[in-house]
Amino acid sequence: MAISKTLSDLANHVGGKVIGDGSVVIHKVSAIDQAGPGEISFLTNPRYQRFLPQCRASAVIVAPGVVSQSDSSITLNFLETVDPYVAFAKILQLLSPAPQYSRAISAAAHVDSSAVIAKGATIFPNVFIGARTRIGRDTVLFPGVFIGDNVEIGAASVLHPNVVVRDGCRVGERVILHAGVVIGSDGFGYAGADRVKIPQVGIVVVEDDVEIGANTTVDRATLGQTVIGRGAKIDNLVQIAHNVVIGEHSVVAAQAGIAGSTRLGKNVTLAGQVGVVNHIQIGDGATIGPQSGVGQSVPAGALLSSGLTAAPHHEWLKVMVLLPQLPKLWSAVRSLEKQLARMITAGKK
Amino acid sequence: MAISKTLSDLANHVGGKVIGDGSVVIHKVSAIDQAGPGEISFLTNPRYQRFLPQCRASAVIVAPGVVSQSDSSITLNFLETVDPYVAFAKILQLLSPAPQYSRAISAAAHVDSSAVIAKGATIFPNVFIGARTRIGRDTVLFPGVFIGDNVEIGAASVLHPNVVVRDGCRVGERVILHAGVVIGSDGFGYAGADRVKIPQVGIVVVEDDVEIGANTTVDRATLGQTVIGRGAKIDNLVQIAHNVVIGEHSVVAAQAGIAGSTRLGKNVTLAGQVGVVNHIQIGDGATIGPQSGVGQSVPAGALLSSGLTAAPHHEWLKVMVLLPQLPKLWSAVRSLEKQLARMITAGKK
Amino acid sequence: MAISKTLSDLANHVGGKVIGDGSVVIHKVSAIDQAGPGEISFLTNPRYQRFLPQCRASAVIVAPGVVSQSDSSITLNFLETVDPYVAFAKILQLLSPAPQYSRAISAAAHVDSSAVIAKGATIFPNVFIGARTRIGRDTVLFPGVFIGDNVEIGAASVLHPNVVVRDGCRVGERVILHAGVVIGSDGFGYAGADRVKIPQVGIVVVEDDVEIGANTTVDRATLGQTVIGRGAKIDNLVQIAHNVVIGEHSVVAAQAGIAGSTRLGKNVTLAGQVGVVNHIQIGDGATIGPQSGVGQSVPAGALLSSGLTAAPHHEWLKVMVLLPQLPKLWSAVRSLEKQLARMITAGKK
Repeated sequence: MAISKTLSDLANHVGGKVIGDGSVVIHKVSAIDQAGPGEISFLTNPRYQRFLPQCRASAVIVAPGVVSQSDSSITLNFLETVDPYVAFAKILQLLSPAPQYSRAISAAAHVDSSAVIAKGATIFPNVFIGARTRIGRDTVLFPGVFIGDNVEIGAASVLHPNVVVRDGCRVGERVILHAGVVIGSDGFGYAGADRVKIPQVGIVVVEDDVEIGANTTVDRATLGQTVIGRGAKIDNLVQIAHNVVIGEHSVVAAQAGIAGSTRLGKNVTLAGQVGVVNHIQIGDGATIGPQSGVGQSVPAGALLSSGLTAAPHHEWLKVMVLLPQLPKLWSAVRSLEKQLARMITAGKK
Repeated sequence: MAISKTLSDLANHVGGKVIGDGSVVIHKVSAIDQAGPGEISFLTNPRYQRFLPQCRASAVIVAPGVVSQSDSSITLNFLETVDPYVAFAKILQLLSPAPQYSRAISAAAHVDSSAVIAKGATIFPNVFIGARTRIGRDTVLFPGVFIGDNVEIGAASVLHPNVVVRDGCRVGERVILHAGVVIGSDGFGYAGADRVKIPQVGIVVVEDDVEIGANTTVDRATLGQTVIGRGAKIDNLVQIAHNVVIGEHSVVAAQAGIAGSTRLGKNVTLAGQVGVVNHIQIGDGATIGPQSGVGQSVPAGALLSSGLTAAPHHEWLKVMVLLPQLPKLWSAVRSLEKQLARMITAGKK
Repeated sequence: MAISKTLSDLANHVGGKVIGDGSVVIHKVSAIDQAGPGEISFLTNPRYQRFLPQCRASAVIVAPGVVSQSDSSITLNFLETVDPYVAFAKILQLLSPAPQYSRAISAAAHVDSSAVIAKGATIFPNVFIGARTRIGRDTVLFPGVFIGDNVEIGAASVLHPNVVVRDGCRVGERVILHAGVVIGSDGFGYAGADRVKIPQVGIVVVEDDVEIGANTTVDRATLGQTVIGRGAKIDNLVQIAHNVVIGEHSVVAAQAGIAGSTRLGKNVTLAGQVGVVNHIQIGDGATIGPQSGVGQSVPAGALLSSGLTAAPHHEWLKVMVLLPQLPKLWSAVRSLEKQLARMITAGKK
């Protein structure tokens, strides 16, 4: 059930302008080196401009200035728009048929009699829904999803297979939780040498328009709330500890980990495999590079990193041996500086 | 169903002493800046002492010396105890109502006819239990839990949703396995250039009082056993390879990984995202800092780290370029030292 | 149901030669310090040779030259072969009884009426299989497995409990997916400041003879395919982003992460916790050491690393402070060199 639109329709949809024939019909988005007739491609990286002459697509999305209407050598049609990447995303959304769900509660789901399932929700087989839990309108729970007691899931959210949301947690509207996500597991808290377990009696709040990647874990708060702010995007295999707060529209890439009670501001970006210690603040708009360790609070807007780049192994071995001797090296240099200063002074006498 | 206790009861429970009115009734534990009447808070960090004057809690747990009975300016009640954090944990346990389970085997669970389920165990719907497996008294298996053949799960353990324990593995008493934990997946073993799969025919033994965090994976041994020692606490998304032995009461933070056949002693602490190579020993009581790499055996009691702290990106780029040239820098310094020594010798002549 | 073979049978099976009595019957493989009568052990590490004199095994697998037939002091039987580790793997395979499955579709599985399940496949309870999906001959789907619509799973594959394969993905023959693996989750793609979701309409192709470890995640392509090449072996908790291509027979150890559109050649090895940025190429046969960061393309055959080794914490703290000052140190050394050169020149005058 492919969806088709004319190039003019697509241009209207994204607020762009047609250069060429607006009546061509498009049913698919493809990469520039693979697109054929009936397909639209996009040019977001100037390096790919070299594919244009051979491009067989019916149209290409480009930024202003890439082609001129007077350029007779190019016979393609174009959709010119300020941000081709955003236009690409919106057109791909438009042309991708929405998945069809049963909008019914499977007889093979286990739904507590006190749970409330709103109209239009799809509950697949093997879903478990606990007591006093509320599932919002048009929300989809795939097979193997577990929802504990007293949970709220907002409208139009999608919980992929085997997602777990434990007791008392709240998930907003239009939230996407990918397969295997765990929301509300116990935080990692023990007291004293005997490691007395600190009960984790808080909850997790996942606000509207959040997306969380496969097998990511978000621990419930010890007291209070762990919060994933509105519009935040979290990748796969991320660890979010108890009482962490992720600000609105922040982005956390795969395998990053954030320790307990740390707060990320709005629009923060953590690259892949970043580690952040507990009880610090990362200011609005800060960006942390891949594999970096963040050991203290970060001011708003900062761009920090501590990741290393792989070098030839035999050379790196030498670096690894010398690195711990860095303090000795500094002393040697300081000592040289002093000796030289002394000699210069002596020479002047 | 909140539980209420007098402050005196709580003091007795944790072996502490009341300063103020022991008859106040407490039903909840709250953070010091959020607590209200009927609630008890705690002071474990001196930095939070500034909240005391405005604190509206009915009582605060403090260490000896924080308040004196003669201090008339403070009108709060206190529970004085040697370790306020442990007291906090114990009081939170006392006031948190124990979850109520059905203590029944759901008709929608799949239990092999040769499996033995002890009295008081709760088997939720969609649980699968294999042949000749034994489940201990009062143990709880949440929906989606898979237990293979010939498995033993001890008494009073809790396996959260979608936990997997494969054939032959043994889990002790009072063990908590959080959602998505995998126990007994195949170790990562291949032989030769053709990568012949080495069958992983050993098991995993999880001893009593262990807690393992969400989506953590523990591989079965090639031959013999992978062991998680009594009382060890493992956080989320940790990787424990085949034939690893984790000593009693060790603590492994989130996203750490331990390669094959490595042995951790007792009371070892690995911080988050630590990586440990295979076939080494980490001695009792050793502590490894966040993101560190451990490439060789570590003596007991050692405190090691190799994690880096994120610096301004443009400055770090320069460091990254210079780091591989560290050997060259050393040579330059050595050469300077020699030249200078020669000059000094020459000058003395 | 143990399987027994004579030592001669085993030698034939692996193309080796018996030194001693080929008629002894072997039913088990054990470690050299634990083996007893009826068991065969193996010597792959010369360090373990010291266990030979006390070894109680009925036979030991060794490389040529380890024992000589004339050595009367050793009374053990030996299986001599060029690669004892491969022989160990093959003999362990031979002596490990194949698991027995029902080869039936459980009535408690949810199989869409348009799905096609080949003969000999085992579908456990609580499996979900979507529309138009095809499951190959003798393939095993454990409880909690979710297979979406239009999926193909080849013959003789094993999908362990709670594996998820989303719509449209293709899995080859003899593939092993360990518990909790997610194939085909959405790639992490957003466009513009508003983070418009880029629909992920591509698929994942897992070729024949691939093995993927527990809780590993493989994202579907934005457009096109994410590919895990034939014979590749992926460990636990690995992140493979959208449009990544893993070449044939490559090996990726636990907790490594590969960002979007990066291509690994054939026989590439990534050690544990390695991170690879997006849009690069790693050449055939390259090896990347543990915890390394790979920020640019890597030539074939390269051996790279950037991992650090944990040092005593108080010493490492000094290194961490000095590291960002490396550029300053270089300047100091350069300045010293110039001063010294000037002095030498002046001294010559």
